[in-house]
Amino acid sequence: MNAEIIAVGSELLLGQIANTNAQFLSQHLAEIGINVYYHTVVGDNSRRLLDVVKEAEKRADLLIFTGGLGPTKDDLTKEAIGSHIGRPLVYNEEALKSIESYFIKTKRPMTPNNKKQALVMEGSTVLPNDHGMAPGMMVKGEKNLYMLLPGPPREMQPMFIDYAKPQLLNLLEKVEKIESRVLRFFGIGESALETEVEDLLLAQQNPTIAPLAGDGEVTLRITAKHESEETALQMIQETEDEVLRRVGEYFYGYNDTTIARELVGRLKETNQTIAAAESLTGGLFQSEITAVPGASAIFNGGVVCYSNEVKEKLVQVKKETITVHGAISKECAIELAENVRRQFDADFGISFTGVAGPDEAEGHPPGTVWLGLACKDKAPKAFKLELAGSRTGIRKRTVKFGCHYLLAEFANDK
Amino acid sequence: MNAEIIAVGSELLLGQIANTNAQFLSQHLAEIGINVYYHTVVGDNSRRLLDVVKEAEKRADLLIFTGGLGPTKDDLTKEAIGSHIGRPLVYNEEALKSIESYFIKTKRPMTPNNKKQALVMEGSTVLPNDHGMAPGMMVKGEKNLYMLLPGPPREMQPMFIDYAKPQLLNLLEKVEKIESRVLRFFGIGESALETEVEDLLLAQQNPTIAPLAGDGEVTLRITAKHESEETALQMIQETEDEVLRRVGEYFYGYNDTTIARELVGRLKETNQTIAAAESLTGGLFQSEITAVPGASAIFNGGVVCYSNEVKEKLVQVKKETITVHGAISKECAIELAENVRRQFDADFGISFTGVAGPDEAEGHPPGTVWLGLACKDKAPKAFKLELAGSRTGIRKRTVKFGCHYLLAEFANDK
Repeated sequence: MNAEIIAVGSELLLGQIANTNAQFLSQHLAEIGINVYYHTVVGDNSRRLLDVVKEAEKRADLLIFTGGLGPTKDDLTKEAIGSHIGRPLVYNEEALKSIESYFIKTKRPMTPNNKKQALVMEGSTVLPNDHGMAPGMMVKGEKNLYMLLPGPPREMQPMFIDYAKPQLLNLLEKVEKIESRVLRFFGIGESALETEVEDLLLAQQNPTIAPLAGDGEVTLRITAKHESEETALQMIQETEDEVLRRVGEYFYGYNDTTIARELVGRLKETNQTIAAAESLTGGLFQSEITAVPGASAIFNGGVVCYSNEVKEKLVQVKKETITVHGAISKECAIELAENVRRQFDADFGISFTGVAGPDEAEGHPPGTVWLGLACKDKAPKAFKLELAGSRTGIRKRTVKFGCHYLLAEFANDK
Repeated sequence: MNAEIIAVGSELLLGQIANTNAQFLSQHLAEIGINVYYHTVVGDNSRRLLDVVKEAEKRADLLIFTGGLGPTKDDLTKEAIGSHIGRPLVYNEEALKSIESYFIKTKRPMTPNNKKQALVMEGSTVLPNDHGMAPGMMVKGEKNLYMLLPGPPREMQPMFIDYAKPQLLNLLEKVEKIESRVLRFFGIGESALETEVEDLLLAQQNPTIAPLAGDGEVTLRITAKHESEETALQMIQETEDEVLRRVGEYFYGYNDTTIARELVGRLKETNQTIAAAESLTGGLFQSEITAVPGASAIFNGGVVCYSNEVKEKLVQVKKETITVHGAISKECAIELAENVRRQFDADFGISFTGVAGPDEAEGHPPGTVWLGLACKDKAPKAFKLELAGSRTGIRKRTVKFGCHYLLAEFANDK
């Protein structure tokens, strides 16, 4: 089965939003083995929409539409498709009730045009909207299958996952299970990682392995197909084991996790706390840590020591350290980490001091960073980073390196 | 003139990336009055690409391609279009030199397939690539105009702005100048703002006014067309004056600025400094402030006081304050702001204490926030926020409210 994704909405053609729906749907269709050969975006215009539909009917089995199911006159997708394939629109009782109860719940008056959202094509399979009002629908035409989904991603995405994808899986001839797992790496470049697993990448058939780089990280998506879910998972596990045997030291977690989230998790598991003294990162590390719900179990606080004066007065870095070695030095990083750990009575202390740019500082170019790490009952460590890129990129990657080195401490302890 | 944007790349059809190029180009084409009726995405496949091209030639004057100009065998856009419109590919000397010098600069060996990137269609206008290797090109066919741009946004965007857009402006029959300005607002909802300027929105013709909401902010884009640039700017200014007369108190800046950047600018202008004590925001405010280059002129440091113990020990909040009023209280917010201001010897002290969620705290639901503000030689203030949304959204909006209230202090001083 192959599919074409058709987004309906003039806001896309004006560039007000990006077509992230097509990306989302493409990912999920690829996972269940449905090929997507085209994405099309067309405005809120019946004639142009029908031209696109006729073209798509020739080249795809499944036409997936996003957008144009709302209450206003601009919303014309189901009207246009319904009339094109000869399916009149009828009220769906369940959708109507759900729309009415939505207005009661939010204490807003229901305007008559909202009723229009409960109209569906006769004979279609209704896809309930748990996060909005307009239901989706799926209907078989003479030759093609038509699926209509709402435009707002927060409605479309759960509808697709919960209702549309299971329908599609039922339709697929071979009921192969497709399982997929993303491995996340930090501290290794994309090409270095690819070199390490090159033979696996070249030999891949089933499972497939897809590398992707971004934001200083690299991910590998392993996807396996098999009639038995258990076997598919077993195939993924074997590939994962082989990958991690080679580059396991850079691996930090699965799927949609973040490296900060993994660090918080590891600290919680081991019942340990952390404190931070941040110069160039200006609070970004602590902000990432506290973005994780429940961070209060492992984090009491820390200091942003942007100026040298604050490093001395509030984190008690010795004056001589800064005059002799500079603030961007191993010595300063270690004092910051040790002192902040002690001050906040934490198990770990971490510090970041360096040049975010765009200007150099103390004669160091942007991207020069010293990262200090103090652990209770252990000698302190310091790491030097030499990063390229923008101010924002340098700060973000510095924080990720902090999480990376801390996670390595846990690995060392095993 | 109307255009169709055709993205070439299988990574889009697999959902690995979103087609943000189409969004970017649509925005810029709309600004210069070129209508976009379709976006299409097609994979790295000559036959399917040509099918799409033939369809697009019927419905658009200008075909803009993104992607497929790179060095690998997958990159086939210029080969396919060149052979379709009968333009052989020839080496462009300047591009060749620029590719060679790129490899010298980055000290990497130049593999032979990179030379392919210097090939352009005979007789085309070459669009230089200042941020990568593959040049773009523009060429007139029998009936259509073809523009080929590279896929990576960091190469495509500056190429379009610096070289392609000026070429298009030259081609447009009516040489109307189109000017546009974005006004940014915080502290007012989209529908409230729309109500305030409803008559202007209804009456709009030239200039046009387009509201857009996102991330707790609302923007209004004012766009004016006129043969004289000066008159177009004057028209924008008149509309802006009328808008700001009504909702000026929520306005904070123009175009791509951020509210944190405006705050840093205002502090620099007035030669004042700020310190922060952050609880629920966990360093996010300070991270946003230090994301602005040159922040060291106005910021020496601050504290992340996540636990009550740190609030007491490091920011000297009185024990009674927390036992009597709680940490999420006006009294605690004010003490934090005053103490951190004094500790860091700053002109302003700001504090954030509240519930980011997902769980409630001290009997307050997520979104309950007290924001303290201490100014030198003035009585301290506190503001209560009651925000809805996710943990991330609550933290982000809390930080923006902090910037908003601080900016208001400057307005009050005028």
